Amino acid sequence: MYRQDLACRKDKNKTMTDNINKLMDRISVEIAGLDLGMPPVELYEPVGYCLSLGGKRMRPLMTLLGCELFGGEADTAMPAAIGLELFHNFTLMHDDIMDNAPIRRGKPAVHMKWNANTAILSGDVMFALAYQYMFKVPDQHLREVVELFNKTVLEVCEGQQYDMNFESMVQVTEEEYLEMIRLKTAVLPAACLKAGAIIAGASHDDADNLYRFGETVGLAFQLKDDWLDVFGDEAVFGKKSGGDILANKKTWLYIKALELANERQRELLLKGFGNLIADPDEKIRVVKDVYHSLEIGQLALGLIKSYHDRAFEYLDRIDVPAAAKEDLLQLATGLLHRST
Amino acid sequence: MYRQDLACRKDKNKTMTDNINKLMDRISVEIAGLDLGMPPVELYEPVGYCLSLGGKRMRPLMTLLGCELFGGEADTAMPAAIGLELFHNFTLMHDDIMDNAPIRRGKPAVHMKWNANTAILSGDVMFALAYQYMFKVPDQHLREVVELFNKTVLEVCEGQQYDMNFESMVQVTEEEYLEMIRLKTAVLPAACLKAGAIIAGASHDDADNLYRFGETVGLAFQLKDDWLDVFGDEAVFGKKSGGDILANKKTWLYIKALELANERQRELLLKGFGNLIADPDEKIRVVKDVYHSLEIGQLALGLIKSYHDRAFEYLDRIDVPAAAKEDLLQLATGLLHRST
Repeated sequence: MYRQDLACRKDKNKTMTDNINKLMDRISVEIAGLDLGMPPVELYEPVGYCLSLGGKRMRPLMTLLGCELFGGEADTAMPAAIGLELFHNFTLMHDDIMDNAPIRRGKPAVHMKWNANTAILSGDVMFALAYQYMFKVPDQHLREVVELFNKTVLEVCEGQQYDMNFESMVQVTEEEYLEMIRLKTAVLPAACLKAGAIIAGASHDDADNLYRFGETVGLAFQLKDDWLDVFGDEAVFGKKSGGDILANKKTWLYIKALELANERQRELLLKGFGNLIADPDEKIRVVKDVYHSLEIGQLALGLIKSYHDRAFEYLDRIDVPAAAKEDLLQLATGLLHRST
Repeated sequence: MYRQDLACRKDKNKTMTDNINKLMDRISVEIAGLDLGMPPVELYEPVGYCLSLGGKRMRPLMTLLGCELFGGEADTAMPAAIGLELFHNFTLMHDDIMDNAPIRRGKPAVHMKWNANTAILSGDVMFALAYQYMFKVPDQHLREVVELFNKTVLEVCEGQQYDMNFESMVQVTEEEYLEMIRLKTAVLPAACLKAGAIIAGASHDDADNLYRFGETVGLAFQLKDDWLDVFGDEAVFGKKSGGDILANKKTWLYIKALELANERQRELLLKGFGNLIADPDEKIRVVKDVYHSLEIGQLALGLIKSYHDRAFEYLDRIDVPAAAKEDLLQLATGLLHRST
């Protein structure tokens, strides 16, 4: 439904630090080396296929960076990093069935390449493999990490449920929307960072501040994603503008516009989202016009900026030398200022 | 919220020891008390519904008995017992989608009462809740229990995959079939027993023998299930005989019959399972006739008896006083001699 994809492309890596690029390479090697060759091939092959579709591997990167931030060796956090990436990919496999999404990263989604049953069962096994990797966390931190992971899993499921509920709701409040994207999108990067911190032996307060940092960056990221869909440069963004409008997605932009609209604008929005404008281009134009009149784009950027600032406040509070925070600063800045 | 069924079937309990009946009641109370009232209701309500459909709660009972066998307090093993029952119910929720099974324990399956998406996502959350309960195992035994659990989860998924594969395979060997039911059906009760044993601090050898006992009872149980479907007394078994034949299920009976059949019998079996006999009663009659001529029923009972004997050998090897084994003996005997 909403793009959870923090995936990056090679050209973006130029903006990343050498250490980030090095860690990315280690993650790629690790994922490429996963042994999924055991029988039955019908069960494990779709898991390998799903992972092979790529993505930027932002979540495992965050786990390694969360670990390094507190002086930990990235390798100590690698199994948890892989577990979190497996979990993320499992959610994509099941979400694609539920959302009836045929394409994932330019290739057929698992339920299209095989069928829904395959995507259900291979998804389940991928979920179990995620736990298997989480259980490789050293004894000392095992319980804390798996409990964080499990809490996050439940929250991500809850977020997906709210997202599906919203489809049939006439009105969704801003608060409800922000809580939905927090659960569906933001708690996972937050947990990735915190898992790394726990493994490195960070203090409770530091680990919590890092969690808040990740959660707030995650919220800003999703809002930027909503913004790019409508206001992004089609040539740079690489896809046709207005996809969310066409799909009647109740994004923050739509919810805020409905809240601020006068009678006439409200009517136009409801007409557009009620499928009463048959021509797709016309539908996008009408809704965008309302967004423009209400300056919804600027309001969204303002909210993104406030999350951005809050995220960096959380990062500031963490008790490690400023230099150690460089990678995370760079990563978050890259994610929030992206144009694609 | 659905009221959990507190009533274990009274008529069955008469054959069980007082201690088993007492433990069953504790399990029922525990399951009835599970807090599933948190939002979103659309996500957690189907979990409660699925649990409310009942079942014999054999798996959690095994965990408690496995714990008591080695002098452990049943309560120590209760969270793991609940986790294992949650996992079992999760597999039913997802399997019913994959098998397109509309009815579960006489009531609409979750994917029928709601829809497939609900059964996928509520299943996922139920799976995560299962892990949450497994994580309540005391620190000392946490890793060993969750690793056993996770290995079992992967095996159960593999078993379901083999079962689905068999549908489109022309010939399945006896060995392949036995491995499939071992994975799909037998490793879970084995793991339930062993988890209880680990929590009670059993020796490695004792825990392993208990695992083998459970696995072997599980195999015998599934073979008895196949047998009852064809040779069970309809009035006692409570369902129409020959359901597996109608569904073209390649059970041990079919596989063995095909192996032993002469040309003519082989033709009849393939005709029946190739949907070339339109009338259902006629199809069942033809296949049953072949089974009877080949004495497949007796052969099956012979195999069940050999698993039965082997199971009790494993139980014998466990180094605890004979009196402590009474409940497990009673339970296994009840399961293997059942007529329903």
